[in-house]
Amino acid sequence: MNSPAEIRQNIRNGIWSGPTTGLAQAYAQANLVILDRRYAFDFLLFCVRNPKPCPILEVLEPGVFVPDRVADQADIRTDIPLYRIWENGSSFVEQTDISAVFNTDMVSFLLGCSFSFEGALIGAGIPVRNIEEGKNVSMYITSRSCEPAGPFSAPLVVTMRPIPHELVSRAVQITSRYASVHGAPIHIGDEKILGIPDLSAPDFGDPVTIKDGETPVFWACGVTSTLAVLSAKPPLCITHSPGHMFVSDILNEQLAVI
Amino acid sequence: MNSPAEIRQNIRNGIWSGPTTGLAQAYAQANLVILDRRYAFDFLLFCVRNPKPCPILEVLEPGVFVPDRVADQADIRTDIPLYRIWENGSSFVEQTDISAVFNTDMVSFLLGCSFSFEGALIGAGIPVRNIEEGKNVSMYITSRSCEPAGPFSAPLVVTMRPIPHELVSRAVQITSRYASVHGAPIHIGDEKILGIPDLSAPDFGDPVTIKDGETPVFWACGVTSTLAVLSAKPPLCITHSPGHMFVSDILNEQLAVI
Repeated sequence: MNSPAEIRQNIRNGIWSGPTTGLAQAYAQANLVILDRRYAFDFLLFCVRNPKPCPILEVLEPGVFVPDRVADQADIRTDIPLYRIWENGSSFVEQTDISAVFNTDMVSFLLGCSFSFEGALIGAGIPVRNIEEGKNVSMYITSRSCEPAGPFSAPLVVTMRPIPHELVSRAVQITSRYASVHGAPIHIGDEKILGIPDLSAPDFGDPVTIKDGETPVFWACGVTSTLAVLSAKPPLCITHSPGHMFVSDILNEQLAVI
Repeated sequence: MNSPAEIRQNIRNGIWSGPTTGLAQAYAQANLVILDRRYAFDFLLFCVRNPKPCPILEVLEPGVFVPDRVADQADIRTDIPLYRIWENGSSFVEQTDISAVFNTDMVSFLLGCSFSFEGALIGAGIPVRNIEEGKNVSMYITSRSCEPAGPFSAPLVVTMRPIPHELVSRAVQITSRYASVHGAPIHIGDEKILGIPDLSAPDFGDPVTIKDGETPVFWACGVTSTLAVLSAKPPLCITHSPGHMFVSDILNEQLAVI
C-alpha cells in the first residue's frame, strides 16, 4: 500500500494518471476548485453557507500552491492526476499539470469527499454498493437549492447508497461523525421528495443495484461545488476531473467530530 | 420571558442597553465583527481555519444588514445593545446604533458564543461557576497561536470553567455536540500547558472560585476573533462591546451536531 506522499509522487511523475478511488484509503481525498481572487470571498462564503455539499478542508491564499495544512510537501499544480481548465464556466480542456496556467491571483479550495466516510461504513459492516460493484457512486441533481452567495448558486447534488433497512440508523450515526466530509444523510427513503424521477438514471456516475430490503440513503455531494463554480461563469477556473482527487496526508479519522 | 424578537425590539428602541447574558437562554447569541470588503476574504478564511475560537453563524454580503439566515426581521446596525467602532485597530468609541457609520462596502460576520453550551451544561447537572457567582466568565490569552490568514493573526483566547472531576468527561461529551459554538474543550487540567501563569488573574472577565475536587476545563473563546480583527489594524472596523451580543432566532439545539 502506497503512502499519500508516494501516490502524489507517482502522479507528479506521470506514473499514475487514473482515478484515485481506493488509493490510500485511510487518508482523506479532496475536490479541487481554483478561482481568481476576485471570486474568492463569495465562493468561500458559498461553501460556509453550504457545509454539507461543500465541506472545506483547506483554502490557500492567492498564488499559494503548497497546501501546508493538509499535505506540506504537496503541490496542487501537479499532484492531481487530471485537471479541467474551464473557460467561462462552459467548456473545458483536460490536462495533467497546470503549472503553466497557475498564477499569483489564483485561490485554491480543497473540499472534502465522501470517500472518507465510505471506509467507516465498510468498517462497521455496512455495505457500500458502488464499491462492491466496482462502479462510480450514483449522483443526482435534486430540486433543492443551495444557499447562494454572490454570483454562486447551485442545486444540491446528492450521492445515493442503498442501505439494508436495519442498518440505516447505524449509517446515520457513523456518517454524522464526519461532518467535514458531508456528514449525516440529507434524506432517507423516497427519492421523489428530492425531485429525483428515477434512481436507475443518475445524472452523474453509475446506477447501482438496490436489493429487496434496502432503503436508498442520500448524502450531499461535492459535485455541487463544481456546479456552483460554473454558475458564476468565471472567465477561467480550474477543477479536478471527476474521480481524480487530491490525496491528502490527513487521516479520515482526524476529520471525525467525535 | 421575552422572545429574541422582543429583546431586539427593546434594544433597538433604547429600552435595553445592558449586557445580553441570560436573555432568551434557549437561543444562540453571537459575536459581531464588521469589516470593509477588502478584508472580507482573509477574515473569513481566518475563521474557517480556526473554527473553534471563531465559529461562523452567518456572514452578510457587502452592505447587507439583515441577517436573513439567523434572524430575518433583525437589523445588525441597531439590534445590539452596545457597539465599539475601532480606528486603526487601536482605539474605539462606543455607540448604541451604527446606522450612521454603516456603508455599502461593509461585510458583517456573526460568530458563535459559548452562552449556547452553558445552558446545555446546566441542563445536564454540570455547574457553571461564572453563572452561579453572577460573574463574567474567566478568559485568558494563551501561548498558542491561531492559524493566520492574510493580515489576521491572534493568540488563542480561552474561557475556563471549573468542573467536578467526575463530570469532566460528561462536559466534553455535551459540548462536543455544539461544534458551531466552540465545541469540545481545547484543554483539560494544568493551565501551564497553555502558558497561563495564574488562573486567579484572567486577562478578561472575572476570576471564579475553583473548589476542591474540581478540574479547570478550557474552551476556545470568541474574543480571539476580536484580537484577530485588531491585529490587521483596519482603518475602520466595528465589533460588539464585550457581553453585549446579538440575540438570534436560532435555538441552541439547532446548532447541535448530533
